[in-house]
Amino acid sequence: VAKRLEKFKTTIFTQMSMLAIKHGAINLGQGFPNFDGPEFVKEAAIQAIKEGKNQYARGYGVPELNSAIAARFKKDTGLEVDPEKEVTVTSGCTEAIAATMLGLINPGDEVIIFAPFYDSYEATLSMAGAKIKSITLHPPDFAVPVNELKSAITKNTRAIMINTPHNPTGKMFSREELELIASLCIENDVLVFTDEVYDKLAFEAEHICMASLPGMYERTVTMNSIGKTFSLTGWKIGWAIAPPHLTWGFRQAHSFLTFATSTPMQWAASVALKAPDTYFEELKRDYLVKKEILVEGLKASGFIVYPSSGTYFVVVDHTPFGYENDVAFCEYLIREVGVVAIPTSVFYLDPEEGKNLVRFTFCKDEDTLRAAVKRMKERL
Amino acid sequence: VAKRLEKFKTTIFTQMSMLAIKHGAINLGQGFPNFDGPEFVKEAAIQAIKEGKNQYARGYGVPELNSAIAARFKKDTGLEVDPEKEVTVTSGCTEAIAATMLGLINPGDEVIIFAPFYDSYEATLSMAGAKIKSITLHPPDFAVPVNELKSAITKNTRAIMINTPHNPTGKMFSREELELIASLCIENDVLVFTDEVYDKLAFEAEHICMASLPGMYERTVTMNSIGKTFSLTGWKIGWAIAPPHLTWGFRQAHSFLTFATSTPMQWAASVALKAPDTYFEELKRDYLVKKEILVEGLKASGFIVYPSSGTYFVVVDHTPFGYENDVAFCEYLIREVGVVAIPTSVFYLDPEEGKNLVRFTFCKDEDTLRAAVKRMKERL
Ligand SMILES: CSCCC(=O)C(=O)O
Ligand SMILES: CSCCC(=O)C(=O)O
Repeated sequence: VAKRLEKFKTTIFTQMSMLAIKHGAINLGQGFPNFDGPEFVKEAAIQAIKEGKNQYARGYGVPELNSAIAARFKKDTGLEVDPEKEVTVTSGCTEAIAATMLGLINPGDEVIIFAPFYDSYEATLSMAGAKIKSITLHPPDFAVPVNELKSAITKNTRAIMINTPHNPTGKMFSREELELIASLCIENDVLVFTDEVYDKLAFEAEHICMASLPGMYERTVTMNSIGKTFSLTGWKIGWAIAPPHLTWGFRQAHSFLTFATSTPMQWAASVALKAPDTYFEELKRDYLVKKEILVEGLKASGFIVYPSSGTYFVVVDHTPFGYENDVAFCEYLIREVGVVAIPTSVFYLDPEEGKNLVRFTFCKDEDTLRAAVKRMKERL
Repeated sequence: VAKRLEKFKTTIFTQMSMLAIKHGAINLGQGFPNFDGPEFVKEAAIQAIKEGKNQYARGYGVPELNSAIAARFKKDTGLEVDPEKEVTVTSGCTEAIAATMLGLINPGDEVIIFAPFYDSYEATLSMAGAKIKSITLHPPDFAVPVNELKSAITKNTRAIMINTPHNPTGKMFSREELELIASLCIENDVLVFTDEVYDKLAFEAEHICMASLPGMYERTVTMNSIGKTFSLTGWKIGWAIAPPHLTWGFRQAHSFLTFATSTPMQWAASVALKAPDTYFEELKRDYLVKKEILVEGLKASGFIVYPSSGTYFVVVDHTPFGYENDVAFCEYLIREVGVVAIPTSVFYLDPEEGKNLVRFTFCKDEDTLRAAVKRMKERL
């Protein structure tokens, strides 16, 4: 294995999903729904396959999908972008993250990320040879520590990576936090890379897209996907929206990471993005019910539950149960309780920092959530 | 754009396919069929979507596909591999190439490639910080220059990248050449990365898989895909087969480049790989007819045509027509003749070396090939 990847392990999501299967435990770990995506989107994929849309797509996306992404972005943010020059389709948001780092970051560039962070941020920055500066968000509210952020910025800082709504904590960056980050970026000529795949799962407040803040579009790469919004995590259709000068570097990396993305799935994604407002409202309503079931159950089982405003995740403090760290607790939870959660220590540069926290997902049908809650109430 | 990608341009395939559309020219450039993949494979994808196989696949592949890949490899090469520990599914062979380079090559490692080469080899080696040594294969037979290869190997040589059948030339590495490379690799402890996506399009001789040579499996990453074999280039299902210690590094990179590959397409690929022998025989028979049409037409139009033993490409020398280089000739061919070919100079470290050669593909239906040939005979 190349040195740049030596420290990484099999991703925790794979590890935990495999343990779930092995122990017959209820999987509230990896964030994939156990219900299916909408019929109209599946039908669109089937049509595309039948119609012979099965050869290489244009590298940066099927034109209809680039347009649908631009149209949805305009509806959501008011920003008008050129679908041909500012939108690039990728094989999931994970590829968009890799293409951003490999396409825009040079060895030695400093990049600031907020811990806990989705593990691919660290790994792809490592591939790009970046110097990673991690700033930890602490419970209960996971607020951005302003002074720490300010003093982390140097003349070598090239970018700040954000993720809102935030996996794993469910935090949504507030307008004040985003404005502060924006002003620091403009002042110090720093880029923002923003992963907004949970934007349609914003329960407590409206999602704010970083690129929509004054002066920010020109320095922002906005990443998203259809996976979470359409309960089709296995289709792997993502994208990045960025001004032409950033899109250029991004596309260079994308061209050589995957070249192009599954053609029939792109056609289906273009149909998905034209869904009526009612689709998104219903999705949110359904998820609120699920969240309620899980949060109530976690509280009743004795966890300290931190408020989650967005995503389909909730983070809890497991220390009332007396295990020495998150990994030990999760092992106990799988073996003795029959429920899988994700230990969060892998989402910090220093694993010690995450040792009290574990993450549960509520992207499961209500019966599954109730069954998991029942097990935890009875056995914990 | 990050420095590692500064020198690369929009891939030539995208450039040429867009010019084809703009000028209404017949596209014999980028290698995608203008006919559809087999019904039984499309039907399998449709079934998978309907059955709700739409959530994240296991990162290294849907178990049924890993098994089908291992079974096919055994049938083709006699080698028995562990589908769980030695097979990794990727988003096309392009991703497999990127994961190989980023997962197994360290900055400063020397890697030998043969020019002309598929452009992603150079770009992904550049991402990995490798020192690239390119050895040029010359027409008419594109034979491996043995002494040059021997003297290119140093104590820093980490790998040799091969591609057989070879894009763009149609060359198939002979048993003697493969044995020579194998013995050099074993002697000098060098890895082989081998791109064999055209293995089922071997017309003149039997395809020889590098990994099947004595002592080679343990030091070889074998890459392949369903795109060319099943005329489904847009599905983007590829894989790598490698011994566990190489698979480990490969998977580390793969996990963070795309995490996982489209689930329903993987199910369909697992069905595709179980195709009866007759499927592969028919594919080859059809392609032989197509090749005949194109080669005869190119000769009759006045090109110097180099023999192609595999792939769906033919390389020709365009100098009889008096243009100063391959790019100038291809521009003329698009504008005045209405046919798109691929200039080969982008497939060399020094573009000068490719200036006499252009590549045509015959992965088009017979009418299209005849129409292209007619234009060339009349207008060249
Ligand atoms: C690729 S697993 C990814 C993201 C997610 O769903 C999770 O955090 O569980
Ligand atoms: C991604 S384009 C790729 C390979 C190919 O088909 C070609 O060489 O034309």
